[in-house]
Amino acid sequence: MIRFLEIRTTRREEMIDIGAHVRDEVRASGLLEGVVHLWSLHTTCALTVNENADPEVARDLMWKMGELVPHNEVNYRHREGNSDSHVKTSLLGPGLTLLIHRGDLILGNWQGIFLAEWDGPRARKVALRISS
Amino acid sequence: MIRFLEIRTTRREEMIDIGAHVRDEVRASGLLEGVVHLWSLHTTCALTVNENADPEVARDLMWKMGELVPHNEVNYRHREGNSDSHVKTSLLGPGLTLLIHRGDLILGNWQGIFLAEWDGPRARKVALRISS
Amino acid sequence: MIRFLEIRTTRREEMIDIGAHVRDEVRASGLLEGVVHLWSLHTTCALTVNENADPEVARDLMWKMGELVPHNEVNYRHREGNSDSHVKTSLLGPGLTLLIHRGDLILGNWQGIFLAEWDGPRARKVALRISS
Repeated sequence: MIRFLEIRTTRREEMIDIGAHVRDEVRASGLLEGVVHLWSLHTTCALTVNENADPEVARDLMWKMGELVPHNEVNYRHREGNSDSHVKTSLLGPGLTLLIHRGDLILGNWQGIFLAEWDGPRARKVALRISS
Repeated sequence: MIRFLEIRTTRREEMIDIGAHVRDEVRASGLLEGVVHLWSLHTTCALTVNENADPEVARDLMWKMGELVPHNEVNYRHREGNSDSHVKTSLLGPGLTLLIHRGDLILGNWQGIFLAEWDGPRARKVALRISS
Repeated sequence: MIRFLEIRTTRREEMIDIGAHVRDEVRASGLLEGVVHLWSLHTTCALTVNENADPEVARDLMWKMGELVPHNEVNYRHREGNSDSHVKTSLLGPGLTLLIHRGDLILGNWQGIFLAEWDGPRARKVALRISS
């Protein structure tokens, strides 16, 4: 089963918790044991899992990614001004495979599922496949 | 089939080779062709694959990760003092999907499977799912 | 179904678009809905997805990775002179899981599939598994 989540971002850089969307799909599938594959269809936003209890964790992640890979650098040659967004996307990766057990996602207490926007605001699409 | 590996780490930062545990589960499953999904249930340790022949490779990886993402930085806002651990975890990622072929893992000669601890010592849990 | 792609790289660092190979295998499989698992059998080259329209994006990614993780550093202890290649490989990761829908890969308009060589030139092998 393939579904496409549509996520609207509102800033250039932003971590959006998409866990509720994913859980809704898992419940709707009725599947008790299986996997969920998530895939972002973009080259300037990524998917990652990290703490969603204290929002400062996502903020620190964004800050540090920006320090490692600054928005503007003299040596970038791509003319769209978003080379940093492409690099950050490869560093975090465009896909995740989550496990379903007893009808729910296997996630640790502090694990949230995020779309990491690096070149918004934009309308983003994430493919989701649930299978046994 | 879901299993949970329990791994005790002994230092703040440490690369622990969990390949033997994974291979044991693959053999016990009796499966000849399939996949193994691994998922760390934590936001301050990751899973990665790298060389396990010369231990200096894991040591250099840890050193470089610490240089890129230092333990303490004035700009971190999360109060637990482990923002670096969260960032390193997203950079390496919490999950791996390995392939099973002819009853064994498909891994290159030098590939070892590591739990990368960034905020230990702690008791860590890794979910493992084997399926055809 | 397991297949092994063989890719010859020609420089120390290089991004090679392997999308056509992967698409060929998907078509040959005749599968309409499923997943493709890709796995690099090496510890000094990675797999990643990023823009393949403007080649400057891949070039900027390689440049930035080299700036973050320089080839030579006094603190590396591994004697083969390729500690940077190992670190870059863990940062991008050795595996990808792509989705098949209606007989084709689910990829965004700008997404290309790359082998990222960090210690070539070498003969590289990527395992590919297609399953429903």
